This record gives sequence, C-alpha cells and structure tokens, in this order.
Amino acid sequence: MPEFLRLLTPKVALDQFLQACPANVDRKSEVIPTSEALGRILAHAVIAKEPLPPFSRSTVDGYAVWASDTHGASPSLPAYLKLVGEIPMGEKAVAHINPTQAVSIHTGGMIPPGADAVVMIENTQLVKEDEIEVLKPVAEGENVLQLGEDVQVGETVIHSGRRLRPQEIGGLMALGVTEASVVSQPRVGILSTGDELISPWEVPLQGQIRDINSYTLSSLVQKTGGVPVVRGIVPDRYEDLLLAAKKARQEDDIVVITAGSSVSTHDQTAKVIQQLGVPGVLVHGISIRPGKPTILAVVDGVPFIGLPGNPVSALVVAGLFLVPVIRWLLGVQEEELKPQVQAKLTLNIASETGREDYLPVKLIQGEAGWLAEPVFGRSNLIFTLVRADGLVRIPPEATGLQADSLVYVQLF
Amino acid sequence: MPEFLRLLTPKVALDQFLQACPANVDRKSEVIPTSEALGRILAHAVIAKEPLPPFSRSTVDGYAVWASDTHGASPSLPAYLKLVGEIPMGEKAVAHINPTQAVSIHTGGMIPPGADAVVMIENTQLVKEDEIEVLKPVAEGENVLQLGEDVQVGETVIHSGRRLRPQEIGGLMALGVTEASVVSQPRVGILSTGDELISPWEVPLQGQIRDINSYTLSSLVQKTGGVPVVRGIVPDRYEDLLLAAKKARQEDDIVVITAGSSVSTHDQTAKVIQQLGVPGVLVHGISIRPGKPTILAVVDGVPFIGLPGNPVSALVVAGLFLVPVIRWLLGVQEEELKPQVQAKLTLNIASETGREDYLPVKLIQGEAGWLAEPVFGRSNLIFTLVRADGLVRIPPEATGLQADSLVYVQLF
Repeated sequence: MPEFLRLLTPKVALDQFLQACPANVDRKSEVIPTSEALGRILAHAVIAKEPLPPFSRSTVDGYAVWASDTHGASPSLPAYLKLVGEIPMGEKAVAHINPTQAVSIHTGGMIPPGADAVVMIENTQLVKEDEIEVLKPVAEGENVLQLGEDVQVGETVIHSGRRLRPQEIGGLMALGVTEASVVSQPRVGILSTGDELISPWEVPLQGQIRDINSYTLSSLVQKTGGVPVVRGIVPDRYEDLLLAAKKARQEDDIVVITAGSSVSTHDQTAKVIQQLGVPGVLVHGISIRPGKPTILAVVDGVPFIGLPGNPVSALVVAGLFLVPVIRWLLGVQEEELKPQVQAKLTLNIASETGREDYLPVKLIQGEAGWLAEPVFGRSNLIFTLVRADGLVRIPPEATGLQADSLVYVQLF
Repeated sequence: MPEFLRLLTPKVALDQFLQACPANVDRKSEVIPTSEALGRILAHAVIAKEPLPPFSRSTVDGYAVWASDTHGASPSLPAYLKLVGEIPMGEKAVAHINPTQAVSIHTGGMIPPGADAVVMIENTQLVKEDEIEVLKPVAEGENVLQLGEDVQVGETVIHSGRRLRPQEIGGLMALGVTEASVVSQPRVGILSTGDELISPWEVPLQGQIRDINSYTLSSLVQKTGGVPVVRGIVPDRYEDLLLAAKKARQEDDIVVITAGSSVSTHDQTAKVIQQLGVPGVLVHGISIRPGKPTILAVVDGVPFIGLPGNPVSALVVAGLFLVPVIRWLLGVQEEELKPQVQAKLTLNIASETGREDYLPVKLIQGEAGWLAEPVFGRSNLIFTLVRADGLVRIPPEATGLQADSLVYVQLF
C-alpha cells in the first residue's frame, strides 16, 4: 500500500486538496431578504448608494449653535444666545441659524443650516423664554455626527465573501438594502458504509450498531453553512458504493463517505473514487491522530472526502477538511477566526513526533483561569466528544505537552 | 435624576437582573426530531436505556483469540492457532472460541464468546488455509472495545440545559433517541422608538433615518436561540409606547425597547415600564461605555431591557444583558464559553476608572500572532462594528490599556 506510506501533514494535505477543488469563481447565488440572511455569505460586494448618516445629526440633547459664539464662555461669563425655535425629530431642519442664535435640538435631530456645533443641555441655562446662557464653549463640529461620517456614497461597505453577522444585517438595512445576494449553500452528500450499520430508528440485533456519522456530519455541515444530504447506509459492496457515490457526485457539491477508508480487506472507498473520474484520489493517509486513513479526492470538479468510520475520528477530521472545503465553495474570503480559549493543561500528554494530534479536553474554571483536562477515550467512543469542550492541537514537531503548559483549546 | 447617579457595574447589574427574572423552573419544552435539534437546549436529561457499544467489538482487522495463547509469541517463535472461521460484519458471533483457536474479524466486528483479545492482521501470517502464526503477543482486552465502554445502562449521558452540538446529536442517535425534548425558544419582542425612524423599506426624507436596531437585535436573538418578534417602530408618545409595551408583555417572554432610555426630555421607557407592573425598573444606568443609560427591569415575570437608541451601544449592551437573559430563560446550565482570541493591542487606549469599556477591534494577523487594532467610531456608527471582529473589555479598575499589551478579543 505505497500511498499509505507517504503521509502528509494536515496542512500540506489541505493545501493540495483545495488547489484541486473547483476554482473560486462563478458560484451560484440567490437573492433573499436581508432580514433572513444571518450567517449567509455575501455573493457580491455592497456599495453604498447614499451616505450614512444621510444628514448631519446631533449626538446629544441641547442647542445647535455657531461654535464661534461660545468661545470663552464660562459660568461666570456666559455667552447669551437667542433661542429661535426647536428642531422637531424626524423632520427637515429648514430655518437657517445665524450668529448669536440657538435652536433647541434632541439626540438624533438634524443640524440646521448655519449651525456647526451643539451645546449639551447640561452646559446651558434657560434664562428667558427666548434666551439661553451657554456656560462652556464648544468646538466646531462638537456633538455633531457629520453627513457621511459612517459611510460615504460609492464606498464598498461589505465585501463579497463576508459571512453576515448581526451588524452586517443592520448595516445593510440602514442603507435600505433589504434584499441581499448570498452564495447558494453547497449540498454535501453523506454516505455511511458498513454492513454492521443500521438506521437509528431501527432496533439493533447483536452485531449491529446505529449509524452515528450521518448525523454528526450533517450537524457540522449545517453549522458551517452547507445543506446536508443524508444518503443513508451503503452496504460493504463495491458495486453498491460505486452506484451511491456516482449518484452523489451528480447531485451534490461535495461528497463525504465514512468508513471504508482504512487500508484493510474492506477498503473500497479509494477504488470507487478512482473509478468515478479525474483527478481522483489526491491524498490517502495523513499524519494525524485521530484520522490517519483519511482520503481527499476531487472527481470531475466535485470534492470527495473519505473519513474513518469511527465517529470521533470522523468528526475531528471533518472539522479539519470538510469545514474548509465548504467554506471554499462558499467563497468565504476572510480567514474565519477559530474560537479558542487559552487554558492550562492538567496532565502530561505524550505524542509522536511527525504526527499532529488532536486531544479532546474539558474546560474547568480554575482559580487563575481555565484548566484543560484531557478526556481520554478511544476514537470509537462518541461520548468522548460529548464530554469535551474542544480540542488541543499538538503540533507535529512536539513530542508531547507538559502539564501546566498553556494551550489553546479550539472550541467545537 | 437620582437613579442615574448610582451606577452599577455590568456584573452587579446583571446579577440583580437575573435574580429578579422568573425562576429557572417549569420552562416550556417541545419534542422534535433529534436530527433537527442542533443548537437547541435539552429540556430533560437523557439516561441511557442500553449500553454503548451494545456488544464487545474489535477495533482492528485481525483475529480474535485467547490472549493467553499468544504470550511470548515472536517472529522467531510464533504461536500457532487454528483458524476456525470468520465473523461476518453486522451479525452475531455465535461460535465459542476455545484455546488454540482463532477467528478472522474486521474492525467493528463482534468479539465471539471465549475470545478476549484481537491480534492485528499485520502481526500474523496465514500459513495454511486453517492455521495462522501469531508473531507478537496481545494482552487481555487488547484491540477490544468492551460492551458499555462508552456508555453504561442507567448513565446520564447528557444533562438538561445542554446546548446540542454535532456530537450530542450523534450520541443521541447512537442510543436510538431519535426524538429530543428541547426547551421552547423564548419569544423576544423588539420595539424601536423614535419619531425620526422609518422602516428600511421606506425612503427617508431629510431628518429621517432607517431603523437598524430591530434587525441587529433580531439577528442576535436568533443566534442566541430565541425567536425575534419585530414589533416595529413606536412613535415617541407615552400612550403609544405604553400600549405597544403592554401588548409585548402579554405575548412575549422578553421585551426589548430601544432608545428612550437616556435621561432626557424624551425619556419615557422607564416611566412606561414602571406603569406596567412589578417590580418594574431594577437598574437605570450602568457604569459602562457604550451603554450607560441602559434600563433593566422585570414586569410581572417578564424581563424588560431598555437599550440606548444608537446601534453600536444597543448591540454591545444586548450582548451583555439580552444574551444572558435569553440563556437564563432557555435554562442553559453550563457556563457557555465566550469565543475569544488573544491578541496584542496596537495602540494605547485611555479609559475612565470605575467604568467598564468595550472597545471594537479588528484582528490582523501579525508575524507573532494576532494584533488587535482599535476601530474608532462613535457609538452611532453601525459600520464601526461591521469593520470590527470583536470587542476588548477594559475592566473598571483599569485607567486604560498600553500598546503591545496582550488582550482577549471577544469575537462577535
């Protein structure tokens, strides 16, 4: 099994895989209401057609004035200004303000023509019905949000490839962009192979176990912004797998096959993928634990991933290769930040040099910050991951990690 | 304005608020398919009705044997065992294995009665059709996943109040729990007040601006696991706000009112809330920037939050008070980890002692890790947050942060 010997590091394997994936262009998009676009990826940059704010506004309650009228004002030597009216909220400020005049204004109100600053109400005194004392000077532009200060006409406000967060949704609405063009969600076909597998809705006989991977992987796909297509359990026969994989390649944008990827008498995934099209298998075997027997392939433009059958390996490896390829097809332009927490490892952990290990850990609040407690369990035990909060990566160059060393825990 | 003077820290304010919120019991739940429960909160603990795995399984391809038969085996002095058959995948292993016997088994296959270990195929040689040489000893239990090793009958596998991640979905399916009882999602009524506001679908006249907060807050609610109920724009009149707030209190589980919370002539939110029921306003004013004029209240068991009108303050403060109260009503038991990234601040930042500041920053990949670059912009500018990746908290006791100091960036 020669291809199994040249084990690539996860990083090199991922680079080779993504380079062979369909080019990052011409992706399908759809127009949906902006208010329903949270978490979707913007397909086309949005350029502001109007300035924001669309007029100069007061940031405080007070009086719009000529700043030069207030210079030198103090409680002992106030500036006296004539109160000529009030700016109603939500209406155009029409009347021009002349020197020695002031007009009452509320937070968010439109600055009237002529005025160039707002004195806070706290720094004034109403002395007559139509006269105020200003007790503190204001500078030109003080307490004023200028027209276009947030966004100018023609500015690219959100780039394509951006995942929309609450602030992007609000920003688009502020500009009147009530419909957004977002990238269509890739369909991810998920095939589980294994004669021992049954559907979770069936009662297992002795020797049978319920399919887990279809559901952990669908959930991960959903979380990442793809559409999972659970294609069910495929018997351990070459012809069955070939047929199921062919159908998935035709209908889905990415195909994941679990099990059948270890080098054993039962290994068929790699052969099936080679049969399906070109370039076929790119990587078979990665220097990683768990997940060594992973297959990365591209078949006529469709990325294929062969994952180990055991659920912990499958989920960890999917995080390293399936998530990035979904994001690649989505055209996520910016490097998405992996949420992580710094913690102190509670135990010594051994690791083999040259292999990248992912250790499930539970986070415990210690006196001086988080503690990362390894959750031991073989890669066949799904509840190992249920008990864990995240993974600690042990890099290939390390021979292990010392207790009390600071580690970054990548949260699930 | 006496209540505005006793400013609480955000932590104390939140504690007082949650203590007055409806007790963490009797929450509504609903039964949904487990495969659709990603991100939902488990309403009742799940107890395993069967062990996992349900039978002892091989973790490798090889031969099931009596471990004692292999003691001392080596390439120069192999142990000879009689090959008596093959365990078919997905079927019950019936035949009892006696000493000096071996049976061929695949990864995941059921360990037959009698056998107590599996020799990896790599450490054997098939010498006759019915005889193998074992070249390396195995210990009892080696390469065997024991019945119940992951989960035992009667074990609480997932506690109530747990947010379901991909691994919990898979774990439930593994146990045949295809339907899950999850906490009903709280309805969060969102009211925007302000005579200057118009709907994003309308074209603003001079003096008018589009409502942003309804959409940033709905997105945040959605992300946190609540159901946003956008109740629209309410005019700046006491009677209108009272009517709208009354309706929301009757129909929603949490009510958020934006604007109208600063102490000004226009301030009505606090009065309306006091009018609605008891205990009413608990906190008015918090030592925080942005967000000082925040109101926290409980009205006849319904939490109310009064947020500043400007969109940055509203979204930042909602992250600090609305998100925790949604999680409280959901009954999220475990402290959820705030995703964060450690970074080096690029500039000196001043802050007032006694006030907790939240500074929007952009993360930039530096040579030796992430750099956090402050995004300056007044709290009225929503695109300040669009340009940012997260917030840096400056604690009340600090007078600021030095350039080059290490900070934690809380990701949005």
